[in-house]
Amino acid sequence: MTNPFWSPALADLQPYVPGEQPRGRKLIKLNTNENPYPPSRKAMATLADPALPEALRRYPDPESAELCAAIAAHCGVKAEQVFVGNGSDEVLAHAFYSFFRRDEPLLLPDITYSFYPVYCNLYGIEYGTPALRDDFTVDVEDYKGPAAGVILPNPNAPTGRILALDEIERLLQLHPARVVVIDEAYIDFGGDSAASLIDQYPNLLVIRTLSKSHALAGLRLGYALGQAHLIEGLQRTKNSFNSYPIDSVAQQLGAVAIGDEDWLEETSGKVVATRSRVAEALHELDFAVVPSMANFVLARPRGMAAETVYNALRERGILVRYFNKPRISEYLRISIGTDDEMDALLAALREILRATDTSPHS
Amino acid sequence: MTNPFWSPALADLQPYVPGEQPRGRKLIKLNTNENPYPPSRKAMATLADPALPEALRRYPDPESAELCAAIAAHCGVKAEQVFVGNGSDEVLAHAFYSFFRRDEPLLLPDITYSFYPVYCNLYGIEYGTPALRDDFTVDVEDYKGPAAGVILPNPNAPTGRILALDEIERLLQLHPARVVVIDEAYIDFGGDSAASLIDQYPNLLVIRTLSKSHALAGLRLGYALGQAHLIEGLQRTKNSFNSYPIDSVAQQLGAVAIGDEDWLEETSGKVVATRSRVAEALHELDFAVVPSMANFVLARPRGMAAETVYNALRERGILVRYFNKPRISEYLRISIGTDDEMDALLAALREILRATDTSPHS
Repeated sequence: MTNPFWSPALADLQPYVPGEQPRGRKLIKLNTNENPYPPSRKAMATLADPALPEALRRYPDPESAELCAAIAAHCGVKAEQVFVGNGSDEVLAHAFYSFFRRDEPLLLPDITYSFYPVYCNLYGIEYGTPALRDDFTVDVEDYKGPAAGVILPNPNAPTGRILALDEIERLLQLHPARVVVIDEAYIDFGGDSAASLIDQYPNLLVIRTLSKSHALAGLRLGYALGQAHLIEGLQRTKNSFNSYPIDSVAQQLGAVAIGDEDWLEETSGKVVATRSRVAEALHELDFAVVPSMANFVLARPRGMAAETVYNALRERGILVRYFNKPRISEYLRISIGTDDEMDALLAALREILRATDTSPHS
Repeated sequence: MTNPFWSPALADLQPYVPGEQPRGRKLIKLNTNENPYPPSRKAMATLADPALPEALRRYPDPESAELCAAIAAHCGVKAEQVFVGNGSDEVLAHAFYSFFRRDEPLLLPDITYSFYPVYCNLYGIEYGTPALRDDFTVDVEDYKGPAAGVILPNPNAPTGRILALDEIERLLQLHPARVVVIDEAYIDFGGDSAASLIDQYPNLLVIRTLSKSHALAGLRLGYALGQAHLIEGLQRTKNSFNSYPIDSVAQQLGAVAIGDEDWLEETSGKVVATRSRVAEALHELDFAVVPSMANFVLARPRGMAAETVYNALRERGILVRYFNKPRISEYLRISIGTDDEMDALLAALREILRATDTSPHS
């Protein structure tokens, strides 16, 4: 896996492996937490703007000023408290570089977004992984002690569990001289955002994305919210990598999308309603269902290995996510699709579980 | 310039400062080497694709397969010899990380694209800067000796001078065990691409962009061409930063743009013709004009400080680029605009120079 032309350290990288994106065959994709509903029509209409050819021949606004203003209005913060990137993965990379390269270890949960350790590896950041409780909730007291900072998705992925704002405040108070990143990729599906705490805590950075709740995974837009001095740190890093990461189409479409509050309320409401119904149905199918505030549920089939169920669903053209990792290898992560897609999932699960009815468990 | 929340090394970064992108006031922008002609209409038509909303709610193809195939066809290489990124700046960043983090210094010309030292600083790469000859050409023999690799824009920026392919071969032969990056951002304005040498040299990486010759600076698309083992190195790095950097709109629009060969031939031909005419006219205005194969010319006014001319043009609403740097501080870099824009520039220069006619030089 090494090559004489590569930088010697390159072979040590362990790149992230994203959920599969099959081409061709018609599948029900419940494996990458995409929104089942198409994005805001008002936002899509920006693609017909006759000024676009002229905009595209020029470099984009390197500061994404209009997009930042739209995000600020949506989130109730000031424009100088907003940083945008080419997907929240890029924002995360810049945050790791800007804030976590220190002598102490970064703290993150043992079960979490698997890109975090990849960034640690990339930048030579050591990290510690306090274990979630058995019910997959975070115990904030585990995050005491010297640290380069803390990063936590809220709701957590792939568990879906949420940490209340008063617990986040406790975390911020534990590390007043270090940055605490709250990764809110899934916050719009019923959670309370920590964005309301920004003016109070100089060490809070909230990171969000338009990929999930705004149905724009294909556009690559993510952002960070924090006090201006943290935003400035991110800008320093960004301007050393790539001064113009956000293209003009994405800036324009994204600004309208984030302002379409009616669209967000309607589609997020539908996802939340479907999630409740699916959780209930899975429970009836004897799954252990982890309470979720995200657009997916983590659920454990009883009497059948998760990997077996995963493969049986796959054979039926339904993709969910299976992680062959400690503590969650008996679970499936199921994205919330349309009601029709979830009905197809539930029907397939009934069929798969019925086939095992001859087992002593049934 | 430091901050207790930042990583300690962050204050040492010297981020790149891009050419200004003024908003509001109507200006003639000849300062950032943008193409004066709007992009391919066939490419713009992809924005009306009714399948786009569905494409946008999903993650993009992380491998940009169709875009890579279109680039391969355009450049006469195999699809596995193509790597795409969010602008050639991102491709460059990944190349520095993938190939140049070694004990020896990276070699690059003393006058060159100012982002290269920024990446060295970002990744802790030492570098040496062999001086260009007095006429701003590269002497390949200066690049002998132990090195982490070599990077060279061809044509060079901001000089516009080109290095012949046999000289590039000599450079590749000097460093058979190290990667030589030829940054061809400006190759389509009359130069011969080193892409034809890829199958012969396992250490050659060619980097290009759609920002200049394809008039898509606003879209952020760049690419690298090289043997598959180098492309794999770039992919390892990319998948550690951001698995999905190229959005679906850019993948689709870019693939059609790069395939529109008629458009490229017509617009590049116009830029080259305008460049010849402008170089001649500047010469008549007693400028020393560096021979250019790019979409800009570097030229030195005689009898008047370059910075004075720069400011006088600016007052007249014409932006060119002035670099307050050793060896080129008496030059202006002037992007090639439309014929009308260049006529306005030449008229303004005549006016500015006439105002100094009372000086003993005239």
